[in-house]
Amino acid sequence: MLRTKALVGAVSFTVALAVPWWSLSLDAAPAPASVAGAGADEGAAHDDSSSDSPGHEEAHDWKPMDDMMAKRDKSFPAETEGKGGQIIEPEILADGTKQFTLTAEPVKWEVEPGKVVDAMSYNGMVPGPTLTADVGDRVEVVLKNELPQSTAIHWHGIPIDNAMDGVPNVTQDPVPPDGTFTYEITAERASVGWYHSHHNGTEQVSNGLWGAFLIGDMPLPDKTEIDHEIPMQLQDSGTIGLTLNGKSFPATEPIRVRKGESVLIHYFNAGTMSHPMHLHGLDQLVVAKDGFPLKEPYEADTVNVAPGERYSVLVKADREGKWAFHCHIFPHSEGKSGMFGMFTEMVVT
Amino acid sequence: MLRTKALVGAVSFTVALAVPWWSLSLDAAPAPASVAGAGADEGAAHDDSSSDSPGHEEAHDWKPMDDMMAKRDKSFPAETEGKGGQIIEPEILADGTKQFTLTAEPVKWEVEPGKVVDAMSYNGMVPGPTLTADVGDRVEVVLKNELPQSTAIHWHGIPIDNAMDGVPNVTQDPVPPDGTFTYEITAERASVGWYHSHHNGTEQVSNGLWGAFLIGDMPLPDKTEIDHEIPMQLQDSGTIGLTLNGKSFPATEPIRVRKGESVLIHYFNAGTMSHPMHLHGLDQLVVAKDGFPLKEPYEADTVNVAPGERYSVLVKADREGKWAFHCHIFPHSEGKSGMFGMFTEMVVT
Amino acid sequence: MLRTKALVGAVSFTVALAVPWWSLSLDAAPAPASVAGAGADEGAAHDDSSSDSPGHEEAHDWKPMDDMMAKRDKSFPAETEGKGGQIIEPEILADGTKQFTLTAEPVKWEVEPGKVVDAMSYNGMVPGPTLTADVGDRVEVVLKNELPQSTAIHWHGIPIDNAMDGVPNVTQDPVPPDGTFTYEITAERASVGWYHSHHNGTEQVSNGLWGAFLIGDMPLPDKTEIDHEIPMQLQDSGTIGLTLNGKSFPATEPIRVRKGESVLIHYFNAGTMSHPMHLHGLDQLVVAKDGFPLKEPYEADTVNVAPGERYSVLVKADREGKWAFHCHIFPHSEGKSGMFGMFTEMVVT
Repeated sequence: MLRTKALVGAVSFTVALAVPWWSLSLDAAPAPASVAGAGADEGAAHDDSSSDSPGHEEAHDWKPMDDMMAKRDKSFPAETEGKGGQIIEPEILADGTKQFTLTAEPVKWEVEPGKVVDAMSYNGMVPGPTLTADVGDRVEVVLKNELPQSTAIHWHGIPIDNAMDGVPNVTQDPVPPDGTFTYEITAERASVGWYHSHHNGTEQVSNGLWGAFLIGDMPLPDKTEIDHEIPMQLQDSGTIGLTLNGKSFPATEPIRVRKGESVLIHYFNAGTMSHPMHLHGLDQLVVAKDGFPLKEPYEADTVNVAPGERYSVLVKADREGKWAFHCHIFPHSEGKSGMFGMFTEMVVT
Repeated sequence: MLRTKALVGAVSFTVALAVPWWSLSLDAAPAPASVAGAGADEGAAHDDSSSDSPGHEEAHDWKPMDDMMAKRDKSFPAETEGKGGQIIEPEILADGTKQFTLTAEPVKWEVEPGKVVDAMSYNGMVPGPTLTADVGDRVEVVLKNELPQSTAIHWHGIPIDNAMDGVPNVTQDPVPPDGTFTYEITAERASVGWYHSHHNGTEQVSNGLWGAFLIGDMPLPDKTEIDHEIPMQLQDSGTIGLTLNGKSFPATEPIRVRKGESVLIHYFNAGTMSHPMHLHGLDQLVVAKDGFPLKEPYEADTVNVAPGERYSVLVKADREGKWAFHCHIFPHSEGKSGMFGMFTEMVVT
Repeated sequence: MLRTKALVGAVSFTVALAVPWWSLSLDAAPAPASVAGAGADEGAAHDDSSSDSPGHEEAHDWKPMDDMMAKRDKSFPAETEGKGGQIIEPEILADGTKQFTLTAEPVKWEVEPGKVVDAMSYNGMVPGPTLTADVGDRVEVVLKNELPQSTAIHWHGIPIDNAMDGVPNVTQDPVPPDGTFTYEITAERASVGWYHSHHNGTEQVSNGLWGAFLIGDMPLPDKTEIDHEIPMQLQDSGTIGLTLNGKSFPATEPIRVRKGESVLIHYFNAGTMSHPMHLHGLDQLVVAKDGFPLKEPYEADTVNVAPGERYSVLVKADREGKWAFHCHIFPHSEGKSGMFGMFTEMVVT
């Protein structure tokens, strides 16, 4: 169904560090915990004590700060255990139905090197598996609940019968621990859909219970042939915190493409704040909103994605280099210890 | 002037609860007070103590949590005292002028069952009365101030003479307690306008001093005949807190329509944060921004509305069911005790 | 290169106050420090103690509140030391290259009367100098670092070679204190670009290290001749706080135009929160996003600008008066002591 050569084609390289960056102890920790709010900013917490104010900083302070930044920044892409959003293949039933199984279960998730959190997952990964189908497919998704609390799955952006909509106490009973529920979906139209818990959503989604569900082919301007189709799934809260596809910098995955290739990126915001995603050096042509193709695509260098929204952008990799790609809210991506959180690179060679 | 069969046609049903949900005392209170920020999230406050972490939760914890959620969720739509945004009829003066009277006054406002707050209101309701006029009308609005502090009214999105713009110390003196001011407006063009205090706005607007003002008919694609025209007024702060049309779930009002009907929804954000409004199961065609018809309407399933903005969306109710309709920032709509705040349903029968 | 009669044409007037407004001591301080978050609001901090709740406020409280508001509001535009975003002229090198010099240096910056903060600046001003060039120009920018920490400059929205992109540890080494780095740019296309630090961005940008870089002429609908072209640079955090072009109300600069003139405003958000910018009384035609002209411009009265984004809007000043112009998040612009922060006026005579 995908016209891409590689859906998520990049491969993480292992970076061996004699002294891992996170063992350093300057007061310049990335501290995602301190950015609990779109408006939180390190600057606001900044006091005017003599050694810290811009005008009176000791000249010898900058070198260890730079060294730590360099160590952290250059550890990218850092290896971690686990990879989210992997494509899984359905079982094909006798009548042709494509059957996926999603098991909701606790997992220890390594968000960045050494930072392992208690997450909720589908099939042991955050984000959950990427599901794909063709228009016209009959799809079943078997939800097995191995969490210690009830759950349910909503199919966001995918036309569906009300009984399958996945909202406990509105369209179904919650699925209890050790329970099972089978969702039946007919793939009516091309969709940039996603799925997520709709039970105790503040905790369950932020802690990992969401994934992408791509149906059919998105019509593109000028019938562009795309070389890479990449879900870029944003999170900012819960135990997962500030992440791209379930990982924080330096463990985020770079997007590696060849000069001249076309890249279709689908942003999904599974978090609680808007994130303006800025790609350096290469234009983003916004071609779809929530999976609906725009009649008038428009260009941007920064695309603001609110919770629940999806934007699809087409990038022509016409300029070589390592292009920073990050949320432009600096408290989400860059601070005193260098890059962190929602930062990655598009590498064009 | 309105082509609708019902501007706000839904009627709240009384739900008799032997034990009201709010008397339950699990630690799972919806706690709107804890979501003071677009970025605040319950997950962030989540600690890893053994009984609370996802991996170690006691198996017997989920049942009372589910029971409380079900009790709360199924109490929708819950009865409360007072209904905001009611249409009021003007007095027609001798020269044909339509004269409305808005009295700014304190009110005890029941946001949800049992939660009564000190609000500021126009005519005893939050949001204030919905005003309507036709293009070409001469309108007067008499503001009577029965608040213990001064106030004034700004007419947002409505072309007006500067002297009538309602900004104290810029275009007029503030209207003191027991004072009166008459605003004179000629309805120049179709508008999805609103009105609100522009004096001590952080407190006065968040505590209730705003309302909708609809002028004329909005041109719609394909000359769609609409069956319902519904203002959806968002608030998130002050004493009113996270609400749709002045009420929090389960006291929000469902939108009840027949299959095949067309619904025109005008979002207004009178709050302090952006709210991405997601309607399940039915597409939203965005037809206007701030009352200006778009040349190229676009489809979405989630429409992000920033403070001060209005978006008008057309929904074709072509699929039966109870469709969840909520802000997609989960800390604004769904937590450990079920739905709360900015959550309602569109019910298609 | 600019078709404008005046890029930033307004002149601040001195307002002599016998008793400056900020010496008053009611509990109604604008308190930008308390708005650390898009969701923070004064209303939320409001308690129900008898003297403060809307229903029980003492009648004699409102008069001193109004007096203080009037004193503050009417002190606009208040004089302060320093003016940000001034256009600087390049040195023309032998080969025609336009060479600008930007010196990063600490400065004591007067954000509003009496509020002097420790800022980081380019050339002693916040925002930094406005740079301009024509399409086809060869431009050099010499960065001299006189800060006590390292820095670097990213050229946001301007096509550039990767080596000049300004991201420490990705495309270059950081520029240390007393160091120099020369950026080489060929102005490929018309751009509403900006430049900012990409080193310790949370602190350095919020504390003042950004500026506008306008290249060439933006194509406008109907070949509109514009009379004023005005960068409107938004900040909300760090030592600079809630400001328009580096100043807080009442020290913000009014936009003074003649009736019938056309004004092109470029919003830039250098902060950490989205700001919905509302202009009273006059429509905003959105003509470009991030410097890319829109095929279908659309009208709005409130334009939401996320961090990193730029929107260009065309305003026809067809109605006389003093039109309030502000961020519509009231906790960013208007509270118990009147206007503050992100508030200014467009004055049409």
